[in-house]
Amino acid sequence: MSRWRKAQELAASSGIDTLLVTPGADLRYLTGYAALPLERLTCLVLPADGDPTLIVPALEGPAAAASGVDVEIATWGELDDPFALVTELVGDAATIGIDDHMWASRVFALREALPGALQVLAGSLVQQLRIRKDPDEVAALRDAGLAIDRVHARMGEWLRPGRTEREVGADIARAIVDEGHVTVDFVIVGSGPNGASPHHELSDRVIEEGDPVVIDIGGTTELGYCSDSTRNYLAGGTVPSEYAEFYAVLEGAQRAQLDYAGPGVTAESVDAIGRTLIAEAGFGDRFIHRTGHGIGQETHEEPYIVEGNATVLEEGMAFSIEPGIYLEGQFGARIEDIVVCTADGLEVLNNTPRGLVAL
Amino acid sequence: MSRWRKAQELAASSGIDTLLVTPGADLRYLTGYAALPLERLTCLVLPADGDPTLIVPALEGPAAAASGVDVEIATWGELDDPFALVTELVGDAATIGIDDHMWASRVFALREALPGALQVLAGSLVQQLRIRKDPDEVAALRDAGLAIDRVHARMGEWLRPGRTEREVGADIARAIVDEGHVTVDFVIVGSGPNGASPHHELSDRVIEEGDPVVIDIGGTTELGYCSDSTRNYLAGGTVPSEYAEFYAVLEGAQRAQLDYAGPGVTAESVDAIGRTLIAEAGFGDRFIHRTGHGIGQETHEEPYIVEGNATVLEEGMAFSIEPGIYLEGQFGARIEDIVVCTADGLEVLNNTPRGLVAL
Repeated sequence: MSRWRKAQELAASSGIDTLLVTPGADLRYLTGYAALPLERLTCLVLPADGDPTLIVPALEGPAAAASGVDVEIATWGELDDPFALVTELVGDAATIGIDDHMWASRVFALREALPGALQVLAGSLVQQLRIRKDPDEVAALRDAGLAIDRVHARMGEWLRPGRTEREVGADIARAIVDEGHVTVDFVIVGSGPNGASPHHELSDRVIEEGDPVVIDIGGTTELGYCSDSTRNYLAGGTVPSEYAEFYAVLEGAQRAQLDYAGPGVTAESVDAIGRTLIAEAGFGDRFIHRTGHGIGQETHEEPYIVEGNATVLEEGMAFSIEPGIYLEGQFGARIEDIVVCTADGLEVLNNTPRGLVAL
Repeated sequence: MSRWRKAQELAASSGIDTLLVTPGADLRYLTGYAALPLERLTCLVLPADGDPTLIVPALEGPAAAASGVDVEIATWGELDDPFALVTELVGDAATIGIDDHMWASRVFALREALPGALQVLAGSLVQQLRIRKDPDEVAALRDAGLAIDRVHARMGEWLRPGRTEREVGADIARAIVDEGHVTVDFVIVGSGPNGASPHHELSDRVIEEGDPVVIDIGGTTELGYCSDSTRNYLAGGTVPSEYAEFYAVLEGAQRAQLDYAGPGVTAESVDAIGRTLIAEAGFGDRFIHRTGHGIGQETHEEPYIVEGNATVLEEGMAFSIEPGIYLEGQFGARIEDIVVCTADGLEVLNNTPRGLVAL
């Protein structure tokens, strides 16, 4: 059954008469069309009952058709009002579901165009589908994992004392594309004390001998699936004396989480098992973020591996396991792998060495 | 006066008590912070009267501070509710202005968190500021124009018969970064009949001798400003006999628009002058899109150069002039320059040859 047909069934059972989906991961997931987020309206009109229509600006008509969507395409001309077309297709639907990332300007325009309809958020409906990856999606994530692993494996080509984080980052960005991604989504090079800020990106700091360096990188492949992996490097010299023990704690916690996670356990319990080990070693207040996030056509999506998320993990769920410990003013470290729940265990999609890699 | 202070004044005169701005071009324009569009809430709370606060996830605190924002930063922890923080800061504001690109999920969450407040769209308020570029912004757009011109000037390195559009596009993408952009925003290589679809991107079509090729490319520079320029190439061989006359019509129309546009004329009249010339030559129904779009921190923003837009052009307004003619099944062409209105004329930011470039 096509994905949009499954979404129709969910809409019907949720009391949503028509689902409206604008460009973004939900639209690409449901139709295969990777529409650009343009000011001209593109919108999938998906009734719970009946045939869907993809509304696109006339200019984008050929691109939408070329993407192989299996729904009817309706185009609007440069001087037409696309919301009139939406209104016509929505008809007398009482409840319309709005995709989570729809722009506010469209939410307001739809309220004006359809004053009698109740707007409800429909993101969780599509997420129910997207959260379980089918075999093709797992294969796409596996390829993305291999692609980013190839970049990590080449780190010695670029990471050297005397270079700035920004210089190293530019080389990594080129390699992310060369090794099989179409976009570079993020490049974090956190050297020495900068490694203690989890979302530090790049700076003009010159990397020194003995600096532990956190490298967290990811991109999106041609098929639209994301990679994301973090490793820790030493570019010459010797790490501070307290680093080895600190790193062993982190490595042990991440290993325990990889061993524990799988179908039937909750997202929050995966977080807890790593957090407890890190806390027992005295670093509890230095693990300042959740353990991970789901991943697919977005780098961050459901399921989040965080306290309070009682979602039970199931076959096909893909997410990161990335505990980190951050000692402000000194250094930090994070080890991150993307994993997918299988029927009876876990497939780990990143497989470069997890220990501190001396280059 | 800082940009957010100007926005405060506009908010006060528009009856908006508090402006809420999430990651995107408006936030970067107002504060200088190029926040990533993450699932964790980042939001500028800008009261019409009083001091603004930038709410960021604790993880992003160092990055926000490093971006040099001149407003107070308030962070929220991994297990906090960020909307409680927004509610506290918004207080008893009766009317809250929402940025145009805020995600629907946030619009709905704010409605729930602040049930007594009236939500209004505030995009046009910030656009009133963004539509007139200050000298620093014009300088940034000029640099972006030079960067994309350098890519066009190197086209002969990559565009050759026997290569696919996709192969050529990959080389162009690398050059967009090498010549001074941090992201590749789009790469259109429309060869032969594919040039007749204005937003065709890349395909596996092999470029042949005698194919006219439309190349429309752009990226974003380190300072956050966008480039966008279209040129037409011939990679060996001879173009179809009817092409020369067809191209002369387009070149004449674009030249007339460049000569005419400037302060004091309306956006729609710039469109009309080119459209009339193209129609008089018999191609009226083959110029199937508006003449252009504003450009700045977004590739497409106000002012749109389109029928129905009576905006009078003023000093500092930056936009594209890009008429095109498309003969389905045969070929197409488009010539695009970014221009900025000066006090008494027009500065053209793209200056590679506008004629058909034989490589």
